[in-house]
Amino acid sequence: MAQQLADRRDQDFVIWEQFNNEEIIKHPKYKAFNRKTCEMIMTEARALAIKEILPTMKEGDEQGVRFENGTVKVPESYHRAFKLMVEGEWNNLAVDPEMGGQGAPGFLATSVAEYFMGANWSLACYTTMGNGTAHLIEKYGTEEDKKKYIHKLTAAKWGGTMLLTEPEAGSDVGALTTTAAKNADGTFSLSGTKIFITNGEHDLVENIIHPVLARVEGDAPGTKGLSLFIVPKFIVNDDGSLGERNDIVCSGVEEKHGIHGSCTASMVLGGKGKCTGWLLGKQGEGMKIMFNMINNARMATGLQGLTYAGAAYTLAANYARERLQGRDLENFANPAAPSVPIIKHPDVRRNLSWMKSYVEGMRSFFQYMAACRTKAETGATEEERQTCGDIFNMLSPIIKEYLAFRGHEVCIQAMQVYGGPGYCRDYPVEQYARDCKIATIYEGTSGIQAMDFLARKIGAGKGTVFMKFIGEIKKTVADAKADDTLAPLAAKVDAAANRLGEICAHMGKLAAGPDFKVAFAHSLPFLHATGDVIMAWMLLWRAVTATRQLAKGPKAKDVVFYNGQLKTAQFFIMTELEATMGKFNGIQSGCKAALEMEDDGFGAL
Amino acid sequence: MAQQLADRRDQDFVIWEQFNNEEIIKHPKYKAFNRKTCEMIMTEARALAIKEILPTMKEGDEQGVRFENGTVKVPESYHRAFKLMVEGEWNNLAVDPEMGGQGAPGFLATSVAEYFMGANWSLACYTTMGNGTAHLIEKYGTEEDKKKYIHKLTAAKWGGTMLLTEPEAGSDVGALTTTAAKNADGTFSLSGTKIFITNGEHDLVENIIHPVLARVEGDAPGTKGLSLFIVPKFIVNDDGSLGERNDIVCSGVEEKHGIHGSCTASMVLGGKGKCTGWLLGKQGEGMKIMFNMINNARMATGLQGLTYAGAAYTLAANYARERLQGRDLENFANPAAPSVPIIKHPDVRRNLSWMKSYVEGMRSFFQYMAACRTKAETGATEEERQTCGDIFNMLSPIIKEYLAFRGHEVCIQAMQVYGGPGYCRDYPVEQYARDCKIATIYEGTSGIQAMDFLARKIGAGKGTVFMKFIGEIKKTVADAKADDTLAPLAAKVDAAANRLGEICAHMGKLAAGPDFKVAFAHSLPFLHATGDVIMAWMLLWRAVTATRQLAKGPKAKDVVFYNGQLKTAQFFIMTELEATMGKFNGIQSGCKAALEMEDDGFGAL
Repeated sequence: MAQQLADRRDQDFVIWEQFNNEEIIKHPKYKAFNRKTCEMIMTEARALAIKEILPTMKEGDEQGVRFENGTVKVPESYHRAFKLMVEGEWNNLAVDPEMGGQGAPGFLATSVAEYFMGANWSLACYTTMGNGTAHLIEKYGTEEDKKKYIHKLTAAKWGGTMLLTEPEAGSDVGALTTTAAKNADGTFSLSGTKIFITNGEHDLVENIIHPVLARVEGDAPGTKGLSLFIVPKFIVNDDGSLGERNDIVCSGVEEKHGIHGSCTASMVLGGKGKCTGWLLGKQGEGMKIMFNMINNARMATGLQGLTYAGAAYTLAANYARERLQGRDLENFANPAAPSVPIIKHPDVRRNLSWMKSYVEGMRSFFQYMAACRTKAETGATEEERQTCGDIFNMLSPIIKEYLAFRGHEVCIQAMQVYGGPGYCRDYPVEQYARDCKIATIYEGTSGIQAMDFLARKIGAGKGTVFMKFIGEIKKTVADAKADDTLAPLAAKVDAAANRLGEICAHMGKLAAGPDFKVAFAHSLPFLHATGDVIMAWMLLWRAVTATRQLAKGPKAKDVVFYNGQLKTAQFFIMTELEATMGKFNGIQSGCKAALEMEDDGFGAL
Repeated sequence: MAQQLADRRDQDFVIWEQFNNEEIIKHPKYKAFNRKTCEMIMTEARALAIKEILPTMKEGDEQGVRFENGTVKVPESYHRAFKLMVEGEWNNLAVDPEMGGQGAPGFLATSVAEYFMGANWSLACYTTMGNGTAHLIEKYGTEEDKKKYIHKLTAAKWGGTMLLTEPEAGSDVGALTTTAAKNADGTFSLSGTKIFITNGEHDLVENIIHPVLARVEGDAPGTKGLSLFIVPKFIVNDDGSLGERNDIVCSGVEEKHGIHGSCTASMVLGGKGKCTGWLLGKQGEGMKIMFNMINNARMATGLQGLTYAGAAYTLAANYARERLQGRDLENFANPAAPSVPIIKHPDVRRNLSWMKSYVEGMRSFFQYMAACRTKAETGATEEERQTCGDIFNMLSPIIKEYLAFRGHEVCIQAMQVYGGPGYCRDYPVEQYARDCKIATIYEGTSGIQAMDFLARKIGAGKGTVFMKFIGEIKKTVADAKADDTLAPLAAKVDAAANRLGEICAHMGKLAAGPDFKVAFAHSLPFLHATGDVIMAWMLLWRAVTATRQLAKGPKAKDVVFYNGQLKTAQFFIMTELEATMGKFNGIQSGCKAALEMEDDGFGAL
């Protein structure tokens, strides 16, 4: 089991070259970091993840969180592991030093996060969720708010949350009914019920600071009338000490398919009429402020999908090397022939290649997005900053949905490699599959991401951002075409990128016309197919990087690794990408059947 | 929840027409059955399933089976439900009357099974597994064996199992090490350990009759040296009463991803040196005998996938009609517009259409296979019997793998329709997803089915069986081409059938040549793509049937239903089948990357 994370070194090396991290850390902001310190940090993170965090994963699944009289107890082993994570300041690696963090570049923080989340996502989340709340306060809070909350949150002394969802307001946030009434002292009294609140209540921290979306009495219906409030579990005195217990209470936790160690709470605000909140930002701008957080939440959820997939894949590959079963196909009819590890069987190799191609494609896509986010801030020119920010923003629904969706598929295939044991709780892959499933559901379901991509993203800059994105793919294609081995693969990715451009134009036109519902009935396949092309791009880019490294005559072990990069690109582009090309035809068919079906045609109620 | 099964009437009517059940029940064997009695039986089954079986599903999941000192206790509520099923003789509906069953035609038995399995598969299995053992004994047992065991097994007074798997012998059955030593009285003494034994031990029956694969000492290694033994839990006296407790003991049960109410036992044979078995059939023919059972096991597993998918889809469709969330896209920007049921949202409709197309395609495919199996026996001519038997045999790995694989995908999408609640245990779909996952793993994994299809099935009759199968598709295509509305869809299915023929020839040639491993590295995508084409065929066939019914001017409610059939065919053929055409290109690429990757290229061990 401990081996599951041991594979990441090589991966990170390829990514280092692929996205030119050397360039990124030249920025004065990252002067404390060079390649060597980055490597050291990763080595330490890996050791801690394997030794201390991983052992808590199964126990957390079995024990789950316990709800007792308004309190929530996390699995016992979480306490020690949480303490170690926080003492090592792993929880705020990417947070700015002014906010109490380590100021590490994004690529390093996400590589490190992959270790911790892969070892126990539920636990890792408890350590990091305060950062989100801290960032909100940093951007929109008063000086007093900042002083009161930020450092406690980034130090994980206090926890953070996000209270949006209500029983009748899930995807439709604007339907929420929690109210806020202004008090004479400028505070607000909140009243309502929230559900599905991750880490809404638990016993790992002294206090929890809840950002809450609510409607000030008399404000407009829908999203426009929403405001954001800071509602601390314990009210914080001016000197920073904890005061009165606020009237925000956990009324229960969900029994779930997975992430049993993660608390999914129902919260009652103002049950006794005494829930005090402080307005954050301006009244009526709650939704706008929340939108600021959405891209980060999407990245975090995509990372969850990638992380589970990466761990499940590595476990499956190692199991396939160890498990002896059956003879080599060459000796199939000879019972005296020796048993071979199942990695020798062609269908197992196909499955592992399939998993590997998605895991590595997703990892590079994630790092690409992290680099875009960084460069949107640190890029050398205004144009670079703008382009990186635009592409990052446009692809944000894809990083969320695609990694969540494919991540779960990879976990399911890991179960398949294990066979019978894969279905049993003695082995970890079935837990990864259960835990991973949440990622396509929360932080905006698959359908919501697809709507956003179609309605708000592809038209950005009148389509120029999408064209720039296609242009980025073409750069890699050009690099690959210069290499004889890669040229045939490059031609296929080129054709796919051109086809994607056509489909995007088709979808954009359809969505802007009278048949716009038809476009939305194809929006998720469109998002997924775009993700597939990104996978092909990323794997081709990895192959280009690997080819360049091979030309330098690396060590034997590295040769195997880089050759594996070429084979992975070949596998994906020659097989999976062909299916994507077919999918494009289905999207372009503009088939209206799903819309034309009468409701009762779906079957009798 | 009770609604979940209410939708099946219409479905069964289409299937009745599609496969001409009227003709099937004309056979003298089925003289007790006419359309009216079939409908009455289905109505009764549905009522029992909803009222008595369904309430045990969640409890079974939560309680699971309990292992205590060699005994296994099933969830408490199972006892009453089991009794009702057995008293109503639902457990042996399709079993021949001479064996104590009801002699119902296959299509009826499987429609009924879909109710019971959809209501609680784990429970339903306890009632029916004795039939498999009874059929083995009927075919290979002595007269004494038959007298002793068969009627008790088909009456579910005693249970049946199948003991093949051992820790080091899963997919490779021939590697098993359980031994049998002949005793002076003609019995055998068995010794070994078996794992993953469904219903290997439980408290619902008085006795359990275990068919056990073992190797007589000195016999050949591999599958050739295996023999089959009947090993009763309690040895049966000549007068049919229960005698001594045999030395076959449950040593534990697995904690699993799902099917918690189903006992997955480890069994120790001969721990005290006193496990007595009786040879069934000839020594050394154990594997041959087992192969007789494989097609039935494959059908049962396929039915499991279909059943879960059908139940999960119906639940999701009903939830989508009831759950209000968001405004119609037409009023998206107007917060004052009313909330609509989520079935109105284009992406939800797409997802439901996707699920519906697979569920109905799989249901028809299953009924087609059931009809083939029946006609292989009752067909009017030798040619018909031969063709039906050949096609049934050839498609048996597909009915198992494809329904298991797609069935799980449908369950996962049902979770997606529910959103957050779909991830919670308060709602049933997450259990369907967990329970369903076993189906691609046991009774031969996906990879094993794909190998069988490629290596043993497509070449049957030197490829003539495959050609006949394509010919059957062409018959439906010809019917559809005669209808103006269906003609464009027919043309697409025709093209897909032609392409499938090409791909089959390509794969057959590759598998017979020096690069045979390349063929096996594409075998599962080939099986899946073949299944896709079968879905398109079945849905087109349903559309032809529906068109004919519409021409007769049916009632308004039926018009909606039949129109839905046309839309479902259109949805699948215009979108999903396009992706399949792309997949075919991937298969034909003959990409060797998965084979050429070095083992270490998959990542460091």
